[in-house]
Amino acid sequence: MALKVPHRILVAPSGFKESLDAPSVASAIAIGVRRALPGVAVDTVPIPDGGEGTAKILAEATGGTLVPATVTGPVGEPVVAQWARLGGASTGTAVVEMASAAGLRLVPGDRRDPGATTTRGVGELIAAALDDGFRRIVIGCGDSGTSDGGAGALWALGVRILDRDGGVLPDGGRHLVRADRLDLDALHPALADTEIVLACNTHNVLCGARGVAPVFGPQKGATPTQVDELSAALDRWAGVLEQHCTTDGFDIRTGPGTGASGGLGAGLAALAGARIASRFDVLLDSGLSGIDLDALVARADLIITAEGSIDFQTPHGKVPAEIARRAQQVGVPVLALAGSLGRGAPDVHDVGIGAIASIIPVPMKLEDAVANGHDLLVEAAARSMRLLMLGSAVACRSKGRGKKNKRRVAAVAAA
Amino acid sequence: MALKVPHRILVAPSGFKESLDAPSVASAIAIGVRRALPGVAVDTVPIPDGGEGTAKILAEATGGTLVPATVTGPVGEPVVAQWARLGGASTGTAVVEMASAAGLRLVPGDRRDPGATTTRGVGELIAAALDDGFRRIVIGCGDSGTSDGGAGALWALGVRILDRDGGVLPDGGRHLVRADRLDLDALHPALADTEIVLACNTHNVLCGARGVAPVFGPQKGATPTQVDELSAALDRWAGVLEQHCTTDGFDIRTGPGTGASGGLGAGLAALAGARIASRFDVLLDSGLSGIDLDALVARADLIITAEGSIDFQTPHGKVPAEIARRAQQVGVPVLALAGSLGRGAPDVHDVGIGAIASIIPVPMKLEDAVANGHDLLVEAAARSMRLLMLGSAVACRSKGRGKKNKRRVAAVAAA
Repeated sequence: MALKVPHRILVAPSGFKESLDAPSVASAIAIGVRRALPGVAVDTVPIPDGGEGTAKILAEATGGTLVPATVTGPVGEPVVAQWARLGGASTGTAVVEMASAAGLRLVPGDRRDPGATTTRGVGELIAAALDDGFRRIVIGCGDSGTSDGGAGALWALGVRILDRDGGVLPDGGRHLVRADRLDLDALHPALADTEIVLACNTHNVLCGARGVAPVFGPQKGATPTQVDELSAALDRWAGVLEQHCTTDGFDIRTGPGTGASGGLGAGLAALAGARIASRFDVLLDSGLSGIDLDALVARADLIITAEGSIDFQTPHGKVPAEIARRAQQVGVPVLALAGSLGRGAPDVHDVGIGAIASIIPVPMKLEDAVANGHDLLVEAAARSMRLLMLGSAVACRSKGRGKKNKRRVAAVAAA
Repeated sequence: MALKVPHRILVAPSGFKESLDAPSVASAIAIGVRRALPGVAVDTVPIPDGGEGTAKILAEATGGTLVPATVTGPVGEPVVAQWARLGGASTGTAVVEMASAAGLRLVPGDRRDPGATTTRGVGELIAAALDDGFRRIVIGCGDSGTSDGGAGALWALGVRILDRDGGVLPDGGRHLVRADRLDLDALHPALADTEIVLACNTHNVLCGARGVAPVFGPQKGATPTQVDELSAALDRWAGVLEQHCTTDGFDIRTGPGTGASGGLGAGLAALAGARIASRFDVLLDSGLSGIDLDALVARADLIITAEGSIDFQTPHGKVPAEIARRAQQVGVPVLALAGSLGRGAPDVHDVGIGAIASIIPVPMKLEDAVANGHDLLVEAAARSMRLLMLGSAVACRSKGRGKKNKRRVAAVAAA
C-alpha cells in the first residue's frame, strides 16, 4: 500500500505579533513542510488582517511600493509610519496601515491612557496619499492603541472640533466630552472625490455596553474610571458626528465597524465618506491583492494557517477562522500552527480547523520563543507534516486490513 | 471517501521523571486519545526502564505487591525504599528497584559527591528479599546517584572490604583506592542458591575512558579532580574483585553492564553470581511481566510511546527507541510524545519513530510543565490524534483525486 502524500499545500498564515510578520511566518512554514515532504508543491500566501504588516503584504503581493512617512504618533511624538502604493491591477489604490501610525505597540507601557492617545498620524497618512494623487484608499484597521473616535485623523484632514465657546479641542478622546460642533471649512478638498474603504472587524461598535471604551479601554490601559469618562466622551462625540453626517441611515453609535480602531471607523465614515467593510472581504479580494485565494484554497490537498496565539478568540473572525471558512466551502483539511495555544483553543475545531499544533518544543520563556520564532516554526511545521504522514500511514494500513477482512469475509461466504 | 481511523492503539510510554510515573503517563495519553477518537480500542502498557517506578509497574502488571523497606540511603541517612513480590506466573520472583534506595533524586543537591555516596541500601533490599525467601531476584538498575562499584551493596550482603592493614573501609567509592582484599566469611548464605538478574543498560562499563567515573561522575556532581580520584579508586576496586571473581571470563573492567548503576553491576556480578542482562530483554519479557508486548505491538494500528525528554540520547536504548525497534519488526507506525523535545530530537526518526510531538502548548516554566504534566499530556494526545486524522483525511482526498485522474486517463485512452 503506497503512502498517500499531499501533492499541494497552501500555507496561508497571519503574522506572529512581536515575532514574525506574515510573509516570514509563511516562509518558515514552507521550509519546514519541504524538509519533511521534499516533493510537495507549496503555495504561500501571507494573510493580512488589517493590522501590523498589512501595507507591506499588499505592496509585495501586487508589486507595489511601501512609502515611509513621519507622522504624529499616538502619544504625540513623531513616528515613522508607512502606507503603500499598490501595483499591478491595483495601481491607483493606496493602503494606509493604521497600526503603523497609531498602533498599541507605539504607546509606551507607562503612557497607556486611551483617553489621551490620538489617531492624528493616521489622518496624516491619508493626507499624504491624497496629496500624492490617490483617489482610492484602503485603510487597514487593527492593532490600534487609540480610542479617540477618529477625532485626531479628522483633525489632520482639516476638521476643527470646537467646544461651546468656539475653542479648538486638544488631542485625546477624553476631551471629546466637551465637543459641541465642527468647523469643516478646511476639510481636505480631495476627500470629496476619494473612495475610502475601512477594512475592519465589523463586530466593533462605538458606543454602548459593547462599545470601544468598555471593550478595548482596559486592554489599552484604562482604569475603570477612565473607561466611564471615555464612554461619556465618545457618546458626546457620536452626537456631534450625527449633526454633520452626510450618509443616510448610518448608525454612528452601534453600526457595524463604528468601533474599529477605537472609533476611527465612526469618524471617517461620518465625515470623510469612508465605507466600512469586513476586513477580509476587502483585503483578500483578488481585485485588491491580485491573488485568487479561493482558487488556491480549492486546489490544495491541505491548508496550513497560523496565528501567534490560538485561543477562544480565534473563531471570532481571526485569520485562521477566515481561512477555515473558505476551506470548508470546498472541503479542504486545515491545520493551524500557533506560538501559543491558549484557553479555549480547541474551540477552533468548531469552525473547521481540523487540527492545531504548538510550535513550542520545550518549557521556555516567552521572550525566547519570540526571539527564535523562525526556527521554532520551521521545526514545528516539519514535525506536523511527519505526524500527518503517520496518519496517512495508519489510514493506508487500516485500509489494507479492511481489504484483507473483506476478502476473508468473501472467502467465508463463498465456501 | 470514508475516513480511515485507527481501530486499535497501543500506548506504551516511559515515565516522565519528576512529573508522572509511566502508568500515569499511559493513562493520560489514553484519555486524550479517546477524547479525539471516541470509538478506538486502546491498550496501555507502561514500560519500565529499570529506574524509578520499575518495581511498581511490574507489581501492578503481575498482580503482585510492593513492599516498603527502610534502608540506608545514598548519603547515609535512612530512606523508605521498595521492592516488589511479583504475582501471577511470576510468583517467586522479587524485583529490587535500585533507584528507590540509592537514586540520584535521594542525593541532596549540596551533597552530590559521587565519591561519597553508597549503594548499601540496595544490598539491604536484596537481603530483605532473600530473608523473605526469594531465590529469584531481578534488580532494576537505573537513575542511580552512586558510583561505589557496588561496594555498599556487597557490604550489606556480608562482604567486608579490607585495606592493607586489615581495617574495614568506610562507605563511598573514593575509599576503594585503599581496598586490598575481601573477607567473604559473612556473605549472605542464601546468595549461593539465588538467581540474581541485573536489568541494566549494558552500554555502561566500570573502567576506562567510557567508565563510570568520567561518564557519570560529572552528572552526579563530581569535579574534574574527583573524577580522577574516583577513576583510580574504581580501577583498584576492579583489581580486588578480580581476585575473588567466581565467573570464568567475566571482564569486570569493561564487560557489558559492569558500569550499570555506578558499578553495582560489576560488584554483584563478580561476587553475588548476578547475571547482567539488557534491561528491556528482562523487564519486557512476558515471562516476567505477564504481558505479551510483541503481540500487542503486532495487533496495533498505531503505537504511541512517550518520554519526559526526547533528544539525541533517545535513540541509544531509551524506551521510545525500544518500542520503535519492536514496532518496526511488524511495520506498525510509532508516534512519540515528549515533555521536552531537546537537541537532536529528530534523530529518533532514524530508529523508526515516525513522528514526535511536544506536550508544551505555550511558553511556560519547567516547573509549571512538571506540575501540570497530566493535563498537558491529555491535551497533547488529543491534538496529536486530530492531526493524525487530518493526515488520514488528506490521504483519502489524495486517493479520491488519484482515482479521478486515473478515470480521466482511462477515458482519454479509450477515446
